[in-house]
Amino acid sequence: MLTPVNAAHIVWHKGHVRRDQREAVLDNKGVLVWLTGLPSSGKSTIAFTVEHALIEQGHLAYVLDGDNIRHGLNKNLGFSEEDRAENIRRIGEVGKLFADCGVITLSSFVSPYRKDRDEVRALMDSGDFLEVFINTPLEMCEERDPKGLYKKARDGEILNFTGVSDPYEEPLKPELEIQTKSCTPEEAAATIIELLKQHNKLG
Amino acid sequence: MLTPVNAAHIVWHKGHVRRDQREAVLDNKGVLVWLTGLPSSGKSTIAFTVEHALIEQGHLAYVLDGDNIRHGLNKNLGFSEEDRAENIRRIGEVGKLFADCGVITLSSFVSPYRKDRDEVRALMDSGDFLEVFINTPLEMCEERDPKGLYKKARDGEILNFTGVSDPYEEPLKPELEIQTKSCTPEEAAATIIELLKQHNKLG
Repeated sequence: MLTPVNAAHIVWHKGHVRRDQREAVLDNKGVLVWLTGLPSSGKSTIAFTVEHALIEQGHLAYVLDGDNIRHGLNKNLGFSEEDRAENIRRIGEVGKLFADCGVITLSSFVSPYRKDRDEVRALMDSGDFLEVFINTPLEMCEERDPKGLYKKARDGEILNFTGVSDPYEEPLKPELEIQTKSCTPEEAAATIIELLKQHNKLG
Repeated sequence: MLTPVNAAHIVWHKGHVRRDQREAVLDNKGVLVWLTGLPSSGKSTIAFTVEHALIEQGHLAYVLDGDNIRHGLNKNLGFSEEDRAENIRRIGEVGKLFADCGVITLSSFVSPYRKDRDEVRALMDSGDFLEVFINTPLEMCEERDPKGLYKKARDGEILNFTGVSDPYEEPLKPELEIQTKSCTPEEAAATIIELLKQHNKLG
């Protein structure tokens, strides 16, 4: 046991801290910004650029992406339709916890199916889910192809690749659509920050 | 599209914000405080009391418990041995993300098996996992029994109930052991806050 300490200023509580009490500690409100778009459409670059800009402004932001999700929480999932749905469901639930914690959460996943994205939206409190469609023409994504995945998909080495052999269902009513062929990643990031301001998530 | 905004102050980034950059926004460092103990041993009351005290001091704290996990992320899991292990694994992975985000995360689950807890410890960076054994004698837990679960277990209405028909494996080397029969919940909470200070997680 540690040395007994003075507990005089500590008050017994039987339930969670309320979200607004937690947000009062922060300079922002919780939210899940859901980036969706084709592979190599620029989702992660835009998400990271937003994350850095927000942190520099003193806000708490966090990006959920393949790096920290697919190798961790979702490492026991494959790419079957069922597993893809469970992948998105879990990310949505984690995003809900982060938003409840007061964090500006950005998720960066292809998330090709409208149904899966809409289920995440339905899970969240109203105003907590901002869907951002990163609209980059397939030809541009395929030209970039930083990991050579489109090439492998065209060569038949990767099956069920979104945009090549699997469908991508565009959002019908996203909170924001960014046409990346006519803007820089910095401009795209600035537009997302503007969206957060409009939804009273900052300051 | 929103009106174009000034992106002059936004800098392109291709990777995550570093954890120490995020922690600089906060008045604390990320950590996962893992409370383990028998059903009705007082884990959640102590966790909530710590959470409230930390928030009042301006730190960002968040409790993961049955309320926000079992009905959300882990709602598709039952109570078989396999599902219990997956339950703890997912909570550990979520705790890892929260700690990486800079949050003082408290988890409040019976987590009866040493192996499952040790796997969470192995997952975390060194110093990010603080195991706290809430040591309450079985008789006390059973006497409290706020939800009548011990009674149901004794009557055979609930099977595989930890402490009655299922084992609880005490931690061998927890970072902290709290014997609740000789302290109040406020004193227990103060001891956890002292542990956080010792590990340089506050301020």
